[in-house]
Amino acid sequence: MTLYAAPTRDMKFVVKELLQLSSVNTLPGFEDATDDLFDAILDESARFSQQELAPLNRSGDLEGARLVGGEVHTAAGFKEAYAQFIDSGWGGLTSSPDYGGQGLPHLLAASVEEMWHSANMSFTLCPLLTRGAIEAIHYAGSTAMRERYLPAMVEGRWAGTMNLTEPQAGSDLAALRSQASPENDYYRIRGQKVFITYGDHDLTENIIHLVLARLPDAPAGVKGISLFLVPKFLVHQDGSLGERNDIQTVSLEHKLGIHASPTCVLAFGDKQGAIGYLVGKPHCGLETMFVMMNAARFSVGVQGLAIGERAYQAAVNYALQRIQGIPIGHKEPAPIAHHPDVKRILVTVQTRLEGCRAMAYYTGMLLDQARAETDVARRTSAQARADVLTPIVKGFCTETGVWAANEALQVFGGMGYVEEMGAAQYLRDARISTIYEGTTGIQANDLLGRKLLRDNGVMMNALLSDIRTTVCATATQSAAVQPVYNALSEALSAAESATAYLLKIGPTQSATAFGAAVPYLTLMGWLVSGWLWARSATLAEAALRSSGPDSNFYRTKLAHARFFALHELSICNHLQRVITQGSDPLQDIEVAPC
Amino acid sequence: MTLYAAPTRDMKFVVKELLQLSSVNTLPGFEDATDDLFDAILDESARFSQQELAPLNRSGDLEGARLVGGEVHTAAGFKEAYAQFIDSGWGGLTSSPDYGGQGLPHLLAASVEEMWHSANMSFTLCPLLTRGAIEAIHYAGSTAMRERYLPAMVEGRWAGTMNLTEPQAGSDLAALRSQASPENDYYRIRGQKVFITYGDHDLTENIIHLVLARLPDAPAGVKGISLFLVPKFLVHQDGSLGERNDIQTVSLEHKLGIHASPTCVLAFGDKQGAIGYLVGKPHCGLETMFVMMNAARFSVGVQGLAIGERAYQAAVNYALQRIQGIPIGHKEPAPIAHHPDVKRILVTVQTRLEGCRAMAYYTGMLLDQARAETDVARRTSAQARADVLTPIVKGFCTETGVWAANEALQVFGGMGYVEEMGAAQYLRDARISTIYEGTTGIQANDLLGRKLLRDNGVMMNALLSDIRTTVCATATQSAAVQPVYNALSEALSAAESATAYLLKIGPTQSATAFGAAVPYLTLMGWLVSGWLWARSATLAEAALRSSGPDSNFYRTKLAHARFFALHELSICNHLQRVITQGSDPLQDIEVAPC
Repeated sequence: MTLYAAPTRDMKFVVKELLQLSSVNTLPGFEDATDDLFDAILDESARFSQQELAPLNRSGDLEGARLVGGEVHTAAGFKEAYAQFIDSGWGGLTSSPDYGGQGLPHLLAASVEEMWHSANMSFTLCPLLTRGAIEAIHYAGSTAMRERYLPAMVEGRWAGTMNLTEPQAGSDLAALRSQASPENDYYRIRGQKVFITYGDHDLTENIIHLVLARLPDAPAGVKGISLFLVPKFLVHQDGSLGERNDIQTVSLEHKLGIHASPTCVLAFGDKQGAIGYLVGKPHCGLETMFVMMNAARFSVGVQGLAIGERAYQAAVNYALQRIQGIPIGHKEPAPIAHHPDVKRILVTVQTRLEGCRAMAYYTGMLLDQARAETDVARRTSAQARADVLTPIVKGFCTETGVWAANEALQVFGGMGYVEEMGAAQYLRDARISTIYEGTTGIQANDLLGRKLLRDNGVMMNALLSDIRTTVCATATQSAAVQPVYNALSEALSAAESATAYLLKIGPTQSATAFGAAVPYLTLMGWLVSGWLWARSATLAEAALRSSGPDSNFYRTKLAHARFFALHELSICNHLQRVITQGSDPLQDIEVAPC
Repeated sequence: MTLYAAPTRDMKFVVKELLQLSSVNTLPGFEDATDDLFDAILDESARFSQQELAPLNRSGDLEGARLVGGEVHTAAGFKEAYAQFIDSGWGGLTSSPDYGGQGLPHLLAASVEEMWHSANMSFTLCPLLTRGAIEAIHYAGSTAMRERYLPAMVEGRWAGTMNLTEPQAGSDLAALRSQASPENDYYRIRGQKVFITYGDHDLTENIIHLVLARLPDAPAGVKGISLFLVPKFLVHQDGSLGERNDIQTVSLEHKLGIHASPTCVLAFGDKQGAIGYLVGKPHCGLETMFVMMNAARFSVGVQGLAIGERAYQAAVNYALQRIQGIPIGHKEPAPIAHHPDVKRILVTVQTRLEGCRAMAYYTGMLLDQARAETDVARRTSAQARADVLTPIVKGFCTETGVWAANEALQVFGGMGYVEEMGAAQYLRDARISTIYEGTTGIQANDLLGRKLLRDNGVMMNALLSDIRTTVCATATQSAAVQPVYNALSEALSAAESATAYLLKIGPTQSATAFGAAVPYLTLMGWLVSGWLWARSATLAEAALRSSGPDSNFYRTKLAHARFFALHELSICNHLQRVITQGSDPLQDIEVAPC
């Protein structure tokens, strides 16, 4: 049985045809990211994901990570797989060549990352967090700090973590209490951190914790938070490892899913105080943490669609072999995939995931342009667009992932509820993705507050205007594609109306506006997916007209685009009404205890 | 901490004000079901649910049911709780007084049942299945059979089970292979059954299995299936227990949830053949099993809203004590329930569940009228309406339950993902409800095929016409209630249009029609909820106008009705388009393996 088959054909379509590698490999630093390199990396990543990571997914779930004598042991096979991961150089895919990375664009790396998450979400969290830590150190660390820590992290020999949350400070970082006291050229860090993903493990020689804490003179609230680098083992100037730092793994959480990913409670400095080094300026830790967080949010969005894809594959393969009853139009019992309702589930899941893939990779491309564009205006506008899309990718792709895993389980019927089938694990694993790195509600508040209202709609209206340009090309569409553009046009009008409404009431009726934040994020997720679907339909039709190879792929793509447009997109009208009419009545209701 | 607080105020509103006990207690046999009796039973059931069942929910999940030496042991405390269940006479609540039952109406019993499921879904599955078995034996068993088995089952001393599924025969019962060979005045039953809820346990002295099997001369397919009563311990004429029957518990499933409910693989007749007795006529087993199944489908619908309610309560209580950040309009940190997005989640969940409660109890009332109405036309029309609503209650209330448990978990943020909080268990438990007793897809096929198309829309149009009558009363509504009726009117038009479309294409474009079956069931679920919400709004407003007691309850009810109408109901327009435009493009797509 195939556990996972990387959807390379669709990935290639999105990267090479829809978005085009030339949109990034013409920029300085990305010249190597050619179509050929992409194909080669994709194939190698598919092999690694399918053969090394996927087989450890179920066993990792069953065994879980364990805390033994204060040290975390990962599940059987994880160490060996991680060693291969390092040997293949996967760790430094997008990291700066200055520190040993390959400096490849996100547009290329996103599909690689998607594969890893599909194959083994628990495993992939370790490199995900490490990459975020690398970005934060690269962004704010001194040259000396970069040089001491980054090469081993980029190589993957050392891992990185993100230490924000404390029991009383989850979504609200202003409440955090961990302390940092200056001592010589370092600080003593004291405090307890919870929900630390891969807070301890045996995959790497060292773990570089990035920790938010307060200096003695820190102002209250988020403006008094500094960022510290706190290594598990202290690192000598020559890069060799020294003493064990004062960090204890107090316990591991017993979670619904991602059992193989250790979620730690870490005690910093219970004895003499953990030694840490300031990253960036005092009291500016949150800004740096947001660099890390935004990278992680993008990656978790990719993870959401990836776990949905894994669940989808399991469901479709089951549905094509499980025979039950005689489907309409058949004369003999046939696989359940031919029953109209099962087919509806499968196609709905697949098309939504394809839309998410296009949207996530598009955002990856924007991140590349924001990094490498030499033209200031283009660079700024790419960054602005990425800023708008990051919370949408995180929120929409993870919600879609959970929904997809739930629908996929349904395809299995009773067998889906039995753990041995694996479908239940995908749902359990997927469920964290809408929570960590900021819940969907937090993403939506970010979208509405920082991305829409703060600049009075400038960034968002630029996006809507680009979509309007696509819609205006509708006159030139064929009869086959026309309905897709019509549906997009209607969805765009709904989004424009909702946007205008929120811009209007945002300043004066904040509670009503923010009560509609998640519906707004969702509406934008549908719209952007629909936009990329419309463009995909046009490309697919052109490919079919040119009678090139792969006609089956393009025919399916076109049919999927039509299905997505006609079966899904009218949800935007509903969401527009939820936003403009449905949030206000919330103000008349008091939430009461039971 | 309160684990569960029975929502008796809302239950009383639905039963006594919206639906009115007089709609059933004026019928012969139900005279005892007075408002006072209802109140007394509700209070006693609340006490039992809150104090006895709820505390065993988490411990039951952790311990689970275990198979030891061929016998199933339930989790600690379950035996004692079940003994109390029998002592209080809860087992025979709706069963016939001829066999020791109380013969109370479903309208009254539904809220009792909801409480048990909220408190402990795993526990309550045992009496749920027993009641279904009682109904089947009562419907088709001989007088001798009824007299021998029913009194102990009604009392609860013996449990009942439902043995349909075999590995190759899940949704498609035509494929079942278990055999029954005649021998003296009984049959020898041989075959393997899977997914048998409470197939073995230690709660009762005996277990009465109802088993579908084929007689030697049986025609192929569903018309060759007979129903057999197969006791775990044979029963002597005087009711005393005899030999152990040839039934082995092969294994228990390792499931995502409902760990305390043993899901058994049962081997019938591996040795000398299990002794069984024909229930009803040969080859007519499916009809009787459907009696049992419909009872179970209604109950599982109630279960869906019940587990949603339990999850909601946990979320709202957490959200009212967890302080995180300063909500809009506040000056100090405050509980997260005051953040607009958290409030949106809580109110959305609560109002959808209240709509489900009204719809489920309404269906319970129809079941009572279908049993007790003396006027044939009224009896027939009540049965027809119950037939239409049963799949909607089962499908919509369970999907809503899963959705509610998922949203409730989200309110907890990261803590929701940690098993100790309990939120994860509600999601895991809820997840089975859309699968067993027929998946949502099976419910939708039943609704579309047997309830809409078979009589060419007569039953459905009667329901739509009743809703139209309510909508036409809109002219007399106040300004406060008017928007609720407007929203209902729009939803009704959407449902009418979708219904007409499906009636038109059903006979000729079956695959397209059945591809829209679940969206149609969903649309009808929203519509019927919306209908009962509109009627609730009118009642609430009248109560407020009369300045009676409980004005706070009625103000909230009215505000909830407005929220439901303005925030939720426009989904019906979307679903109408999914049905009428979105299913057809599915026909151009082939499902392909990954």
